[in-house]
Amino acid sequence: MLLRAVLGLVVLLGVSTSKAKESRGHISVVLLGATGDLAKKYLWQGVFQLYLDEVSHGHTFTFHGAAQTEPERGKKLVFGRLKKLACPSDVLPDRCAVLKDQFLRLTEYRQLRTAEDYASLSREITILLSQEGLEEAGRIFYLSVPPFAYAEIARHINSSCRPRPGAWLRVVLEKPFGHDLRSAQQLANELSTFFQEEEIYRVDHYLGKQAVAHILPFRDQNRHNLDPIWNRHHIERVEIVLKEMVDVRNRTGFYEEYGVIRDIHQNHLTEILMLLAMELPANISSSEDVIRSKLQAFAALQSPEITSAVIGQYEAYNSHVREELQKGQDYFSRTPTFAGVLVQLDNLRWEGVPFILASGKVLDERIGYVRILFKNRAYCAQNESAWDSERSQCKLKQVIFYLGHGELNSPAVLISRNLFKPAMLGGSWTEVQDHPGLHLFGQPLSDYYMYVPVAERDAYSVLISRIYHGKKVSFITMENLLASWGFWTPLLDSLAGEAPRLYPGGQENKHLLDFEMVGREVSFVVKETVQVMNAWDEQTPDKYKTIQSRYRQSQLITAWPEELISRLASDIEAAAMSAIGCSGEFHLALSGGSSPLALFRQLAVYHYGFPWRQTHLWLVDERCVPLTDPESNFGKLHDRLLHHIRVPYFNVHPMPVHLNRRLCVEEDKGPELYANEIAALVANASFDLVLLGVGIDGHTASLFPHSPVGLEGSQDVVFTESPVKPHQRMTFTLPLINRAKQVAVLVMGKGKHDIVTVVSRVGHEPQKWPVSGVNPSSGQIAWYVDYEALLG
Amino acid sequence: MLLRAVLGLVVLLGVSTSKAKESRGHISVVLLGATGDLAKKYLWQGVFQLYLDEVSHGHTFTFHGAAQTEPERGKKLVFGRLKKLACPSDVLPDRCAVLKDQFLRLTEYRQLRTAEDYASLSREITILLSQEGLEEAGRIFYLSVPPFAYAEIARHINSSCRPRPGAWLRVVLEKPFGHDLRSAQQLANELSTFFQEEEIYRVDHYLGKQAVAHILPFRDQNRHNLDPIWNRHHIERVEIVLKEMVDVRNRTGFYEEYGVIRDIHQNHLTEILMLLAMELPANISSSEDVIRSKLQAFAALQSPEITSAVIGQYEAYNSHVREELQKGQDYFSRTPTFAGVLVQLDNLRWEGVPFILASGKVLDERIGYVRILFKNRAYCAQNESAWDSERSQCKLKQVIFYLGHGELNSPAVLISRNLFKPAMLGGSWTEVQDHPGLHLFGQPLSDYYMYVPVAERDAYSVLISRIYHGKKVSFITMENLLASWGFWTPLLDSLAGEAPRLYPGGQENKHLLDFEMVGREVSFVVKETVQVMNAWDEQTPDKYKTIQSRYRQSQLITAWPEELISRLASDIEAAAMSAIGCSGEFHLALSGGSSPLALFRQLAVYHYGFPWRQTHLWLVDERCVPLTDPESNFGKLHDRLLHHIRVPYFNVHPMPVHLNRRLCVEEDKGPELYANEIAALVANASFDLVLLGVGIDGHTASLFPHSPVGLEGSQDVVFTESPVKPHQRMTFTLPLINRAKQVAVLVMGKGKHDIVTVVSRVGHEPQKWPVSGVNPSSGQIAWYVDYEALLG
Repeated sequence: MLLRAVLGLVVLLGVSTSKAKESRGHISVVLLGATGDLAKKYLWQGVFQLYLDEVSHGHTFTFHGAAQTEPERGKKLVFGRLKKLACPSDVLPDRCAVLKDQFLRLTEYRQLRTAEDYASLSREITILLSQEGLEEAGRIFYLSVPPFAYAEIARHINSSCRPRPGAWLRVVLEKPFGHDLRSAQQLANELSTFFQEEEIYRVDHYLGKQAVAHILPFRDQNRHNLDPIWNRHHIERVEIVLKEMVDVRNRTGFYEEYGVIRDIHQNHLTEILMLLAMELPANISSSEDVIRSKLQAFAALQSPEITSAVIGQYEAYNSHVREELQKGQDYFSRTPTFAGVLVQLDNLRWEGVPFILASGKVLDERIGYVRILFKNRAYCAQNESAWDSERSQCKLKQVIFYLGHGELNSPAVLISRNLFKPAMLGGSWTEVQDHPGLHLFGQPLSDYYMYVPVAERDAYSVLISRIYHGKKVSFITMENLLASWGFWTPLLDSLAGEAPRLYPGGQENKHLLDFEMVGREVSFVVKETVQVMNAWDEQTPDKYKTIQSRYRQSQLITAWPEELISRLASDIEAAAMSAIGCSGEFHLALSGGSSPLALFRQLAVYHYGFPWRQTHLWLVDERCVPLTDPESNFGKLHDRLLHHIRVPYFNVHPMPVHLNRRLCVEEDKGPELYANEIAALVANASFDLVLLGVGIDGHTASLFPHSPVGLEGSQDVVFTESPVKPHQRMTFTLPLINRAKQVAVLVMGKGKHDIVTVVSRVGHEPQKWPVSGVNPSSGQIAWYVDYEALLG
Repeated sequence: MLLRAVLGLVVLLGVSTSKAKESRGHISVVLLGATGDLAKKYLWQGVFQLYLDEVSHGHTFTFHGAAQTEPERGKKLVFGRLKKLACPSDVLPDRCAVLKDQFLRLTEYRQLRTAEDYASLSREITILLSQEGLEEAGRIFYLSVPPFAYAEIARHINSSCRPRPGAWLRVVLEKPFGHDLRSAQQLANELSTFFQEEEIYRVDHYLGKQAVAHILPFRDQNRHNLDPIWNRHHIERVEIVLKEMVDVRNRTGFYEEYGVIRDIHQNHLTEILMLLAMELPANISSSEDVIRSKLQAFAALQSPEITSAVIGQYEAYNSHVREELQKGQDYFSRTPTFAGVLVQLDNLRWEGVPFILASGKVLDERIGYVRILFKNRAYCAQNESAWDSERSQCKLKQVIFYLGHGELNSPAVLISRNLFKPAMLGGSWTEVQDHPGLHLFGQPLSDYYMYVPVAERDAYSVLISRIYHGKKVSFITMENLLASWGFWTPLLDSLAGEAPRLYPGGQENKHLLDFEMVGREVSFVVKETVQVMNAWDEQTPDKYKTIQSRYRQSQLITAWPEELISRLASDIEAAAMSAIGCSGEFHLALSGGSSPLALFRQLAVYHYGFPWRQTHLWLVDERCVPLTDPESNFGKLHDRLLHHIRVPYFNVHPMPVHLNRRLCVEEDKGPELYANEIAALVANASFDLVLLGVGIDGHTASLFPHSPVGLEGSQDVVFTESPVKPHQRMTFTLPLINRAKQVAVLVMGKGKHDIVTVVSRVGHEPQKWPVSGVNPSSGQIAWYVDYEALLG
């Protein structure tokens, strides 16, 4: 049979020797997984389209369907599919029939399992070419197989089926490319033992969707109009959305492992994000330039926090999982089937612009789109009924890349008429004025310039053509892949413990999955949803109540962390108002550590009325590192608070740990300098408020147990030694702290429970437990302790 | 006749002695200008309404219409008007008829011209009260007269017509209160010689409009819902708009002097702005608290620039002026009849929120409204057709105070349903679900909670009642008035030279008056309008061109100041980008003096993209004063630049002129400290850019002629002596300056012309002309000299 197939090919190729010399060479396309779903649905059609497009451009071809299926059955399956190949509308039916016939004759099916199978394929190609006097140009191996099969196939291709030296090899892979950064790295390493990176074509088929493929050309062709507005000053937000109606029945084995973020966000949505956010290279047909630019955009991505995402799961999912994966009734999957993620970039172009990446199954409609919404900075002097869609700047301004489905049911590019009439060069897009009466994204369609493809091409046809042309820019390089996993993996890890919100599906979701952004966080809009997953519900009725009581004979304020911080921030503001009322100034000394960070955020974001102008900020203690070091207490204060408020420069008092270009050297007299500054500015060196924490060893400020200095004596500021790195510290002494008008001690987290218990019992033993020496002569001390620290 | 009138009053007052004792006292209401338009249209009705409301609450009344008109005619005019007094719908017709009859009998008309007229009025009141055994409670003088008459009337009231000691006097004035800050101050001074400030009630009748009067109560009653969102994080913009269709025919005499900004913005729109922007006092019925809060908000207003406003004039205006004021054909008025002004506040609550104040004549509709538009920070997961007006956060969120007219034709308060259901306490507002099908501000009316007054009251009725109740909060205090003029006067002055855009009027304006905001500037959206006012166009072809040439064999950039500064700022940004591209940092050293102040502003306001994060700011020289002293170079840099941008704290390097609590003492080694800091941070102590100025004596930095130090030698930073106070300085030396990669010298103003001429001719003579020693070894020096300094 193999022989017959090869003979068939020979007859068809039947080029004369002279023609063979003119030929640009022969290309063998090997489609592995030729009997699979993807091949059936898209790949064979794409390969046929390639043949139609390229048959007259110099190359000769053979096509090899391959699978594990034994030859007879495989052949039957493949040729059954091939007979149904469709002729595109832009090819004349007669010509298409002839070419389809040729294509069938150039195509064979073979079983590829063993090394010998690969070697024999290679041998036959060589024989055929030598018989025909053809030079080999290259081989394309399209691996439409599960990832676990990659390694073995790669080994066989590499060892037994490479083309002649000088001809190219292109190996095409389909996602998933790993499950997280580590596994992606592993897979990449494995493949790199068999192939050069330039031989590998990783497919993200979204890059072949016509509207996506047009993002860069659109940006390029409309540079003149877009350049001035493609930035944070003009763009309000970007939405990258893929909504599906289907569920994942019969795919739960895969899905339960992956979930929506690995399935959609990590690849499709991220790639689109990059096309939008990257700096546009001067020459977008240079793959190197585009890829470099893309990697720069990856580098600018802000690491997402757990609060950057909301996740949901359609209600029936868990029963599908139990059923298909034979799980028990006590199995609750946390795999998200919906996720909305807020992504931000930390560069001048995009700082502060929200990129919303949203996708889910069992939603109310099937649609994919990219929406760039511009800011409205205009005031229109006429009644809105008189606004003209081309000239009113008060109407919505947006650019939409419509991927398909939805109400348009076609790829499209839409640009609000009040923006500009875009250039759509290259002849593949055409302007239409369709769908009267339809509204999209808050505007009637007549408010847009709208373009659709001259001929709709499915993504795989587009990509197979680009593989053939070697356009690597449409594929995922290893660096790109790892950058994407590097971005998503920490978020995936932190979301792993989260319970997704359950949603009924379809129209019934109503507003359950709507979410909103506050700063860098997102949260569902509808808060009071009934949590069906009570098993995981840790809320107690007390969650938002502060309890007041006594601790060490002093005021104790206790609550869940959020409420505790909010209370502390309000108390600090009240102290500030009162101090300023008396003396015109408020001297606040803040400790290092992680607990105050939430406080800084609270003050920055919710206390607009805080009298910062009259507030002086001091440090209770500091590590002997440069102020810009990530370990610096001042550095944290700077990034989390100072950066967001307006304290006069003169009112900020970092500890002088860095003098004469060296850190904390006794003879530079840093502590004396700071004490002098305090003496000069703070009346009686009595701070209005000192905020302290407690370490698990009972230390407070940087006063550690058995410290030879700082627990008593006449000095106000001293150097001390910490048992943990960085060892050297500068710190307020207990006498200085105890001179304060008010002291607040903030203690949070389960890890502090033991020390909270111990300290509640001990008397005045500063040598052993420095915090027990905090006892301001004013008597004003309040303990802010969260439930976990208090109750364990 | 007077006697008859008084007798009539006596008969009516006819209270028994015992009743008189119970009385809370008698009030005389004197309406000056009683035959005028305003009185006819509103004031008499308002006074009657006061009587209806208050007749049963203890006070007795008499009403005195007064004018210059002689008695018979005046009486006829007034009583003709009084007969037409309307009965409000909430008073029973029978009761109203009785009360109207009483009101007519309690009212007299009298001519008030001479001191004797006033004295006689006062005498008659006294006689009447003593006859009736009534105690006098107070007198209200409502001056509905032109401002030029204020002074004389005030003198007469003060000298001849004050009530008995212990009774109050309230003198009510109508705008205009001056024409600018100076004239307002003058008027205020004049009045203050006759009246105490608490006796003066300055009317802004917009404060009596029901929707405006409800702004503070609305904020107060909805604190819980509004507090978290009434700030820059949630509010996108605020529009305060008053559109009129009428022209100013027959009023051009007044209008030509005032224009729309003095007529509408300075008073009505500003007052509304304050009600929205002020911090809400705990107790809004405390006039003192409200007024204090208002003044704080005034203090936070950013001074508007000429670019904060767009102005227009309806096309027919000029011919109205020529006609009515008998001007010739060459007369072109620049008085604006339309203005859109962008106002911003410089505090934490409002920073960056645009308040748009717009008003004009001959527009397409008559309407007044305040619109607070909230940011949309939500992503809605469902198709927009399924968004629910109460629950979708993706629909517009706004609060509207609808002043009247427009499509609703009634005062109203509207709140988008997705915000919250507001509290509308006090029973004077009622919820309605009217006007099906009407759209307002981008939403169908059904998307709002909508409230209208239970009973519509015109503004004057409301205010006359508040005068009676002594509620000063609804009136304009002198401080308030002067603060407002202080804000508007500089803008009015700078707009005086501007030609307004001409607009045809009504619907024909189309998008001609639409404007948009870029940063702190506004400009018309439609740019290519034909400028008809060529006669006034003072632009020369060179006005906005920079001329490049050579000065001291180096690059010379010369232009008008604005363009010069703009060019320098751009050059600095370019230098920054280039330095950061090379080394990741940009070290910029700035000089003191006044010329850089405009540069700082330019950088703060127009250079969003400036890479401040990587920029280090150094001082070229400093005066030996504390950094917070107004003379401090750093202090100016702080207030004009640092305060507005985000430079990390660590990147700011003030000169250490203040060490060990003393200024510039040799042994504190300030210059060495600064030189060390430079050595530690600036590679090779070679600054990326040093900005210098030149003094009229040829000094630069703080290097003065014949200085014994700094002009050469190995030191980088030294103390020097200035011939002018403060004498002591710290400064970069010439060797340090000349090590810079680039030097820019900025010279502006006619006063510098002579030195510019001298320095252009001298060679290297730093002892005589220190600036002639600026000669960076890089060769990169550019002179930025404005036309006046260059050409004299």
